[in-house]
Order: sequence, then structure tokens, then C-alpha cells
Amino acid sequence: MTKIPHRFYLTEDQMPTQWYNLRADMKEQPEPLLNPATGEPVEEKDLYPIFCEKLAHQEMDKETRYVDIPEEILDMYKIYRPSPLCRAYNLEKALGTPAKIYYKFEGNNTSGSHKLNSAIAQAYYAKEQGLTSLTTETGAGQWGTALSEACAYFGLPLDIFMVKVSYEQKPFRKAVMQVFDGNVIPSPSTTTQVGKKILADNPNTTGSLGCAISEAVEKAVSTPGCRYVLGSVLNQVLLHQSIIGLESKKAMEILGEYPDVVVGCAGGGSNLGGLIAPFMQDKLLGKKNTRFVAVEPASCPSFTRGKYAYDFCDTGKITPLAKMYTLGSGFIPSANHAGGLRYHGMSPILSKLYHDGYMEAVSYEQTKVFEAAVQFAKCETILPAPESAHAIRGAIDEALKCKESGEAKTILFGLTGTGYFDMKAYSEYLAGNMTDYIPTDADLQRGFDTLPKINK
Amino acid sequence: MTKIPHRFYLTEDQMPTQWYNLRADMKEQPEPLLNPATGEPVEEKDLYPIFCEKLAHQEMDKETRYVDIPEEILDMYKIYRPSPLCRAYNLEKALGTPAKIYYKFEGNNTSGSHKLNSAIAQAYYAKEQGLTSLTTETGAGQWGTALSEACAYFGLPLDIFMVKVSYEQKPFRKAVMQVFDGNVIPSPSTTTQVGKKILADNPNTTGSLGCAISEAVEKAVSTPGCRYVLGSVLNQVLLHQSIIGLESKKAMEILGEYPDVVVGCAGGGSNLGGLIAPFMQDKLLGKKNTRFVAVEPASCPSFTRGKYAYDFCDTGKITPLAKMYTLGSGFIPSANHAGGLRYHGMSPILSKLYHDGYMEAVSYEQTKVFEAAVQFAKCETILPAPESAHAIRGAIDEALKCKESGEAKTILFGLTGTGYFDMKAYSEYLAGNMTDYIPTDADLQRGFDTLPKINK
Repeated sequence: MTKIPHRFYLTEDQMPTQWYNLRADMKEQPEPLLNPATGEPVEEKDLYPIFCEKLAHQEMDKETRYVDIPEEILDMYKIYRPSPLCRAYNLEKALGTPAKIYYKFEGNNTSGSHKLNSAIAQAYYAKEQGLTSLTTETGAGQWGTALSEACAYFGLPLDIFMVKVSYEQKPFRKAVMQVFDGNVIPSPSTTTQVGKKILADNPNTTGSLGCAISEAVEKAVSTPGCRYVLGSVLNQVLLHQSIIGLESKKAMEILGEYPDVVVGCAGGGSNLGGLIAPFMQDKLLGKKNTRFVAVEPASCPSFTRGKYAYDFCDTGKITPLAKMYTLGSGFIPSANHAGGLRYHGMSPILSKLYHDGYMEAVSYEQTKVFEAAVQFAKCETILPAPESAHAIRGAIDEALKCKESGEAKTILFGLTGTGYFDMKAYSEYLAGNMTDYIPTDADLQRGFDTLPKINK
Repeated sequence: MTKIPHRFYLTEDQMPTQWYNLRADMKEQPEPLLNPATGEPVEEKDLYPIFCEKLAHQEMDKETRYVDIPEEILDMYKIYRPSPLCRAYNLEKALGTPAKIYYKFEGNNTSGSHKLNSAIAQAYYAKEQGLTSLTTETGAGQWGTALSEACAYFGLPLDIFMVKVSYEQKPFRKAVMQVFDGNVIPSPSTTTQVGKKILADNPNTTGSLGCAISEAVEKAVSTPGCRYVLGSVLNQVLLHQSIIGLESKKAMEILGEYPDVVVGCAGGGSNLGGLIAPFMQDKLLGKKNTRFVAVEPASCPSFTRGKYAYDFCDTGKITPLAKMYTLGSGFIPSANHAGGLRYHGMSPILSKLYHDGYMEAVSYEQTKVFEAAVQFAKCETILPAPESAHAIRGAIDEALKCKESGEAKTILFGLTGTGYFDMKAYSEYLAGNMTDYIPTDADLQRGFDTLPKINK
């Protein structure tokens, strides 16, 4: 019998009842959102046409350190949370590493990922304000599923613009959203002005998250009683996702552990930002010197090859401008299999922390990522999502460094979800038919050329 | 804060370390297996060509009440167990029932079901005996996935004969098994004599579990160092699956609960037999008078419309004869969507208990089952497998009876797994295109006509 269990669950009364707002402890704040027309900072009320009021407030709130989680949200959290903190004993053994590898597994719900943590919050606040419908976008489909689940629970109709390449690669993802009454539309579509324009300019596009966001925002602002919700990038999403890190930290405290390295996959930053939040707090306050590693696909390398600049959050250029690591809103990544990581930008909070040296970032080609996914699946009985497998790859490489140096470091990574709807990608990998896409400098330049003039 | 949590997990040191053998407490034993050629009872050593020795012993052992779970098996159990005991507060509320509804959720592993509990045991004992490969069959694909996971873990090559209708309905199931190095063959196939014969007689057959079993057994007995393993029906499987019931009972004890009704879906009986085992013990010993309800599909109604008779376990008539509720080994069910429940027979242990009045059984048409599945998914954030949804339907109807009578009964049901590979069926249901199949009396008679003469 080992002292640290393979899977550790907090009890219901040990679950956090507040989210943690990382900005309250950042000495240097992320740059403000800007109105693209005026170049002036956006105020809370400017966001009301897009977001419901409570969420607009959370988006702008830099002061409140801990935010009470409403009872109705906690009630739904308890259906699938706490999520387990797992010790990867088998993976450690397979690697022959002295490192201790922990992972926080967020895939035990039908959305298959951590996305439900913010979906519930956003659907709840919309319902509370008396809104009558929501729109959103989805890449891999996990966010769309999560929001469908939350909307079904609170009784809100939902339109989901799904990136076309994922819509086609994942025929059954659509069906899952439909079980929860979600209305799924492949993006770009002809149901919006911005969709029509993108299709006219580039009829064969496989779509992108940025483009789907444009369509969803347009639909929301042009429909009475409707608002837009987003599953990543935003400050409010990182706030809600802090539940991941808070649970992880509490569980590790009980087990007498603290991570030396925290590894997470990074698309828009929702999981990574949520996972690292309370550990980053300790670093910001000078209590700990933990390393934080963001792992991104080589095909969409916002951190590792992007620019820290003001950019639109969407391809259609209708959102406010955010200062973030970005490849340019016009960057359309190749059709790799980690749909959730195909976003051109990155959370402004994480961008600031990375820019200020609090975080590191690495990128991997997808064949290396699937190699890690298969090794992990055989060791741990969980089939990871391609997005999550980026973190696995990163954690394995950290553990192999420990093997070389002989250091018994404690590694924590975020296992954001399961890959049951990614079997086409796994089949391709197993058959040896998977290709790696790395954008050339010229490809990147084409994206950077779409950055707004305000940066000049 | 409610006193009973939504999800309750035993700690690792509260996990059972022994399986429970229900036969040790049955005053009247199931009838013995018979050699089809001689009509004589089969002895343990007669099973050695098919099963490895320890499993053959477990198959025949009526005396040993508690069997120690080997350390190596416990080690792998701990990667995904204990499974949660869940209180379905939201479902209770949606139904407006005074009943308390609990479910034991076995879907938190890549096989998506409880099947891993026995797969690990069977792969371990085979490896321990020095065998070099295994064969099996799979219906919905959950058993095949589970055994692939277990074989990958212990390093044993595996051939999986997959019922053709599932192979075609579930293109990605195959890929999951391949991730774990499983070799998947659609059944009937031309790789065995029995497969060739079945195809010659009925070229358009969609296959059946019984037929896939024949092929797997033939392959095992004709390959040196190879044995056959089965995911259901057998006494050894019910023994391994008792972990489900033992964990459930222990968790309920800690919560101060005991079920008035236990509901499980019934295909070959692996989940139902495992779930009810320790509760049935109390009933057999006269300590409790719990009701046990088996739920089966109307399209394959072994308990509710079958005969209690000696029959082959496979379509090819090469296995020993078992006394069980059966539709006849020649019965081929229509292509319903609960592949795991398309078996012509039923566990001899459960058959005996049902025959002696210790259990009840009900059957449902599949549209009623999917209706329950969708309602459950919206309440509980878990998308159930069609097989599992039979138990949900049964539990909901028990809870609705409580609503009528005003009784606050405690209902426990087994949620065997998730339905991520059943989206074709969900799509059909949502589109209103799902058809119900109920065999006519003439259909059943054609099956009964294939029963062996020994019953006459």
C-alpha cells in the first residue's frame, strides 16, 4: 500500500467555495482592452452589449482577490467535481524517472474537459440576468458541449458556431451537443455577415476559432436578449477555471506536496491559467519559485513565435483589442488535430506573466504529442484529448530531464480531457499517416501583417 | 450543503482487497456445466484447454466465499478505482420523486465501462501462467477495449472478434482498441472454420456475440500458448465484478444507507451479478429483503421471454452446455443499439437466482431507453452507454412508482458506462428515426428450435 493514493479526491466539504482572481496579486497588470475605433480603454459598461453584466464586471475586476461562487453554480459543480488529483505511478515507472508526476484530471464529465467549469458560471449569470439565449464558438467541440450541458441545465437556448475542420473531423461531437439541445452551425457559415465575407474571400477555408468567434459575437449583438460567451482567453474564464488550481493545491497540501514544475497545454489559456493560478500567487508573493511551462502546438505557436501586441480576439475584427501574444487575427493555422489549440492569440493575463518572465513556453509537433498520448493511455487507462496530450508531452520531457539529472522533482500537469472524439486523429497516427505542420517565417509574417495599426 | 455528497469515493485503503463468490452462500447451486458430447458434468481440468488454470478453478469453485485479489491486480485497479457512488439529486428533482436514487458509475476509464474489472484479472492470471496470447469477442466494444488495456498493461498480444454490426456502427471503437495494440477482426470472419460456416449459411448476418465467441474459442484452442477470455456470463467474471457491489455496499454503509431496490442492465449478467452480489448475500442469509431488478432490451429478452434450459454459450456450438435463461444459441437479435445486451443467454448464477424467485426482470424497447438516457444526461452530466441506459430506465420507473405511492425508497442502480461511441444511435434517436424491434413468438421459436436435445 503506497502512502500517496493513485487518485485523490477532496471531499465535498473540502471543495473551494471561492474562485481566485490572479490579477489581484499581479504588481504589473495586463494592458487594458481597447476600443478599436477610438483606441481608448474599454470600460465595463462598454462590454454590456456582448457579455452579461456580472461577467463584464468579472472581466474588468482587478481588485477582488476571492470571488464567492454562487450556490447554484456550486450545486452543479458537485455533480462532477471535485476532479481527482492523480499520481502517475505507472508512467513514472515506464519512464524510469525519479520525478513524482501528478496530474489533475478534468475529463470526468460529458463535455470531456475542464470547459464545464466556466460554462456553468457563464450560463448561470446569463440566466440570472434574465437573458433568453446565448451564442458561442467551439473548436474541438469540448467547449460547445460544455456550454450545451450548462445551458440545458439552466434552460437557455444556445447557438454554437463550430470550426468547420472540427465539424467535419468529428461527426459525433455535433450529436453530443444536440443531446443537450445545442444548435450547431459549421463556421464560417452563411448565417452571418462576417461569415459570408470570410467565405467570399476564402471559399475553401477550414475555419478558425477567431472566425467562429466573429460569427457568434455578430449573432449575439444582433439578437435581442442574447449575449455571447467564450470558453477561453478572457479574464472571467481564468477566474472560473481557478477552481482547477485551487482544488489541486488543496489536495497537494493534504498529501504534503508542492509542485516544482507546473505544466499545462495552452490554446487560449483557460486550463493553464486556472491550473497555475494559486501556485502563481505564491510565486508573485515571493513565497515559492515554481516553474510554469506552457505547451503549445508547433503549428500554432502564439507564445513561442508570436508577438506581444494589441490584436483583435476574432478574425472578423469586431471585438475589442487585447494586448496578448498573438500570431495575428488573420493567421489561419493548418488543420492539425488539436482543435482547441488552434487559436491565434493567448490570454492577456498569461501573456503578461510570460512577458514578465514568470512563465516558460515550449512547442511540439503533433506526432511527438500523439506518441506521448499513446504511452500515457497504456500506463494510466485514460485516453487523452490531443490538446491535453501536449501537457503530457511536456511533463514527460520534464520527467526525463529529472532522469538525466537524478532530481526527484514534483511535477504537476493538467490533463484537461479525454480524446473519445479524436479517434480519426489517433487512427491516422497509428497508421503512420500523421503529418507535422510548422508554419514558415513567411506564413507567420502573413499573420503579423494583419495586426492592427495601433501597434505601429 | 447536503449531508450525502453528490459523488462519494472510498479512499484507497477502504477499497476491498477480496472478491466475493456468491455461490458460497447459495443453498441451491446453479446446475453444472455439461460436456455436449457425453452429457457428463465438466470438471475443472476439462476447462484447461480454453481457460488458464486459475480462472478454470474460479469458474468451478463453489466453496471459497472470499478470494484474495492479487497485489498486481489491485495495483491496476487503483489507477481507475474506486469508482464513485453518486446520488442523483438532479434526477430526483426532475422526476419529483421522494425516492433517493444512487448510482455506481463505472465509466471513468478508457474502456468506458465496468469491463476492465474482469479484464485485468483475466489478463493477469494468463500472464502469470506464462501464456503468450489471448483471444476474445466483443459486442459494443467495451469489453474488447477493456481487455486491450489490460493486455497492453501486462504485455500480452490479443485478437478480438468484434460483432460485425458494432464494428460497422462504431468505426472509432476499433481505433481505441488499436491504441492498446488490440487486433480487431469483424465477426463472422473467414479466419476461422466456424466463421466460414456461419457466413456460408447466412452471408448477410450482422453477427452476434454467440458467433464471435465461437470464433474466439476456435482460435484459442488451435493456437499454442493461447487461451480464450470472456467478458460476461461466466462465474469467474461475476466473481471479479463483485468489486462493484462490494465498493457500493461499503460506501452506502459509511453514508448510513442500504438499498430497497437494486437495478442493473442485463446482457450476459457481468455488471448485474457484480453489483448485486453482496446485497444478494444479505438476502440469501435472510438478513434483508431487497428487490433486485434486471433490465433487458425487448429485442433480446433472455430473462423475460427465454427458457431456463441447457444451451451452448456460443452460436458455433463448441462450448460446454450451461443451464441458463436463453433464447437459443441460434437466436440472432435484430440490430438494436445496445450491442452489449445482444447475447442469447444469461449468467447461470443469475439464471438460477431468477428461477428461484430472488430476482425480477423487465424489458424495454430502445426508444424508451434512449428517452431515459437523454433525461439522465441533462441532469447528471454523464452521457450513458445504451446498455447502461436500460438500468436508468428501470431506476426512473421505480422512482416514478415511489412518486405515485409516496414512498421514499432507496434505489441503487449500476451505471456501467459511457456512450461516447454510440452517437450514431443517439443521432438516430434525436432525429426520430429510431425503430423498436420486438421478436415475434415465431422469431423466438426459431431460436428455441436450436436448443440442444439434452433438454428434451
